[in-house]
Amino acid sequence: MYRLQRVISLLTDFGLKDPYVGVMKGVIYSINPYAIVVDITHDVPKFNIDVASTILLVSYKYFPKGTIHVCVVDPGVGTSRKAILVKTRNYFFIGPDNGCLYKAIVDDGIIEVYDISDSPYSLKNKSYTFHGRDLFSPVAAYLSLGIPPEKLGTPYEGELIKPSTVGIEILDSCVKGYIVYIDGFGNLMTNIESRYVREIGIDYGKFIKVFVGGNEFKCLYEKSFGYVEKGNFISYINSWGYLEIGVNQGSAAEKLRAHVGEEVKVCLD
Amino acid sequence: MYRLQRVISLLTDFGLKDPYVGVMKGVIYSINPYAIVVDITHDVPKFNIDVASTILLVSYKYFPKGTIHVCVVDPGVGTSRKAILVKTRNYFFIGPDNGCLYKAIVDDGIIEVYDISDSPYSLKNKSYTFHGRDLFSPVAAYLSLGIPPEKLGTPYEGELIKPSTVGIEILDSCVKGYIVYIDGFGNLMTNIESRYVREIGIDYGKFIKVFVGGNEFKCLYEKSFGYVEKGNFISYINSWGYLEIGVNQGSAAEKLRAHVGEEVKVCLD
Amino acid sequence: MYRLQRVISLLTDFGLKDPYVGVMKGVIYSINPYAIVVDITHDVPKFNIDVASTILLVSYKYFPKGTIHVCVVDPGVGTSRKAILVKTRNYFFIGPDNGCLYKAIVDDGIIEVYDISDSPYSLKNKSYTFHGRDLFSPVAAYLSLGIPPEKLGTPYEGELIKPSTVGIEILDSCVKGYIVYIDGFGNLMTNIESRYVREIGIDYGKFIKVFVGGNEFKCLYEKSFGYVEKGNFISYINSWGYLEIGVNQGSAAEKLRAHVGEEVKVCLD
Repeated sequence: MYRLQRVISLLTDFGLKDPYVGVMKGVIYSINPYAIVVDITHDVPKFNIDVASTILLVSYKYFPKGTIHVCVVDPGVGTSRKAILVKTRNYFFIGPDNGCLYKAIVDDGIIEVYDISDSPYSLKNKSYTFHGRDLFSPVAAYLSLGIPPEKLGTPYEGELIKPSTVGIEILDSCVKGYIVYIDGFGNLMTNIESRYVREIGIDYGKFIKVFVGGNEFKCLYEKSFGYVEKGNFISYINSWGYLEIGVNQGSAAEKLRAHVGEEVKVCLD
Repeated sequence: MYRLQRVISLLTDFGLKDPYVGVMKGVIYSINPYAIVVDITHDVPKFNIDVASTILLVSYKYFPKGTIHVCVVDPGVGTSRKAILVKTRNYFFIGPDNGCLYKAIVDDGIIEVYDISDSPYSLKNKSYTFHGRDLFSPVAAYLSLGIPPEKLGTPYEGELIKPSTVGIEILDSCVKGYIVYIDGFGNLMTNIESRYVREIGIDYGKFIKVFVGGNEFKCLYEKSFGYVEKGNFISYINSWGYLEIGVNQGSAAEKLRAHVGEEVKVCLD
Repeated sequence: MYRLQRVISLLTDFGLKDPYVGVMKGVIYSINPYAIVVDITHDVPKFNIDVASTILLVSYKYFPKGTIHVCVVDPGVGTSRKAILVKTRNYFFIGPDNGCLYKAIVDDGIIEVYDISDSPYSLKNKSYTFHGRDLFSPVAAYLSLGIPPEKLGTPYEGELIKPSTVGIEILDSCVKGYIVYIDGFGNLMTNIESRYVREIGIDYGKFIKVFVGGNEFKCLYEKSFGYVEKGNFISYINSWGYLEIGVNQGSAAEKLRAHVGEEVKVCLD
C-alpha cells in the first residue's frame, strides 16, 4: 500500500547557509534510505506563513501522488502550537498548525488530520527550537516507510489555523486583489485567478489599467514576456494560473517598489 | 539500451528562492521516480545565455555518460523560439534554441537535433511562461525512461542559434581574450585555453603582464593560489583548462572592478 | 560489509552560484550511481576553517552510520597541505588536513587516518585548484563502492592540524566563551555547552546578564523563542546543545553587531 521509495518535499525559511536543511535530510535518510527528498525552497521570507502557504498551494500538485510535503515555517516552535499531519485526497502534509499548510490542504481536500505534537516517532531528546529535525523529519520518514498516520499521531478534530488572506473584489470592469508573492525575477503574483480576469472581459492582446501602490499605468495583457520590448510592463496569467505583473527581462517589483500584501487593481482599458 | 536510473542535470537562472526548481523536480520524479536529478547551478545571471553556455561547456563532461543536461535560461519563453533536444556523442541536451546549449553540444559533437517545441510529451495545458516545468522537465524525464528522441520531437536540420563570442588574438608575446565567467571567489576566468598560454612562452614560475580594463599589473603565473601571499594576484590555468586571474584568499573581481565580457590581455614579462 | 547505497555529505565554501558543487556530484554519480549525496551547506564563509569545523561537529551525527562526510574548505589547495581520509567510530571523513575535520573526528573518536594526497583513485590530470572535484569526490565515491581506505591512501601517523579554538572559563557565577557561529536567523551560538550553564546555576525561567562586545543586557533564559515578545532577547540551549543568544523573530547579530570569534560572558542575574 505504501511504497518505500516515496518523495518527501521540504519547504522552510531556514535558508541554505546553515546546516539545518542538510541535517533534516540526514535524519530522513537515517530512517528511510530509499526516500527521495526534494527541496521546494528554503528561502521563504523568515517567519512569513502567508508566503509559505502560497508557495505550497501552487507547488504541491506537481509532485507524485503520495508525496509527503513537509513545511517548516515555524515562529511558534517550542510553544503550545500544535504540530499536524494531514492526509488529503492525493498527498500528505506535515508541519506546524499555524496556517502554512492551510491553502494546500483545503485545495486538495482534507481527509484526516492528526496531532503529532507528542508523536512517539520524534527523535529522542527533542529540542525546543528545531522541530524540523526532531519531529517533522522523522515523522515524514516513518510515514514514507509505511507507518500509518494513526500511529504517528492522534486524530485531531479541532479547527485549523488559517493564514491571513484578503478576498477578491469585482467592481464593474475592474478586479481588486493583492500581491501574494514576488519571485526572484521581480514578477508580482496576485491572488486574482484567471477566471476573474476573463469575467471582466480582459483578453489576450488587450490593454489593461493597473493600479499598484501610488502607481497607475497601462499594460499589455498577453501570453508571455516576449510580446513587449525589453524593459516594458506586461500582464499575464502566470504558470500557476494567477494574474501577474512583470517586466520583460526586468523587475516589476523594483520598478514599482512593490511588496507582498500590497493591493492591486486592474481594469479593462 | 537506456537505463532507468539516469542522471538529469539542471542549469537555470531561476534562483532557489522560488519553487520553480523544486517543481521541475516534482514533475521529473512524477514521471521517473528512479531519475537522479543534479543541480549544476540555478544562479546563472538572469537571461545571460553566454554565461549559461560557458558553465554548461565546462561542466557537462564530469557527469556520467548518457546524462540528460537540461538548460533553461530562456528569455524568449512563450515566443516562437524553438525548443530542442540534442543527442551528442556521449550525452543528451535539452533547452531553448537560443545558444545556451551551443558550446557544449559542439564540444561533445552533435549527432542529431530534434525540435521539441510541440512535443506530445509536454504537460497538458502547457503554460506560456514556464517551459522548464511544462516542456523541458517532462521531455527529459520521458527520455530518461527510454522514450526515444524521435518520439519526443521531430528531426531538425535548421541552423542552431549561437551565443555571442569573441575569439582569441595572438600578438607577438601577448594573447588577448575576454572574461567569460567570474566565480563566487571573484576569480576571473578567460576564454584563453592553456595551449595559447604555452604558445607565447608563459611557464610556471614566470611573471606575466596583465591588462584588464584600465588596469595593468605584473602577476606570477603558477599552479595554484598558495604560491603567493594572501591578497596577491596570481594567474593560473583553472580547473577547466582556461587562464584565470585570481587573488589568494581574496577577490580579483572586486580589486579590478572587472565584469564578464571585458577584454583581457596577458603578455610574457 | 560496505553497502553500495551510501550517503555522502558535502560541506564546502564553494557557494551555489558556480558549477563546482554540481560537478562534484557529477563525478560521484559517475563512479557510484547509487550514492545518496546530501549537501550540509556550501555557504561556509570563504576559507573559514573554524566555522566549517563547527558546522561539521554539530551536523555529522544526524546522518546514517557509515556516512562519508566530505568537507572542502581548502585555502591551501595545490600546496603541500595533506589530504586525509579518517575512519572514526561511526563515520568516514574526507578533506584537507587543515583543521576543518578536526572537531568532528575527535568527537566521534578517530580509529584510523590515511593520507590520500597522492591517491591512485583521484581523477586523471588532477588540477591544482579543484581537489573537491578531482580528489575528494572520487575518493569518497570509491569508498562508497567498498574500496577499502588502505587502497585509497596510505596510513598516516602524523599529528593532525587543529582549528583555532578558545576554551571556556568559569568565574564564580559567570561563564565566558565566544561566538562560534551565527546562523541565518542571526542567532549567536556560543561554544558554551549546556552543562556549564547548569554549573553556574542558570535554569529555565531565570534571567541572566549577557556581555557581548560593548553590550550588557538582561535576558530571559528559557526553552525557546516564544517565551518572550517579538523583538526581545532570549537565551537558550540551542538544538546542538550550546548556549545561544537570539531575538524572537528578529536578529541578535544585527541588534548587537556581533561577529564570530567575539567573546561572550553570561552571569546569573
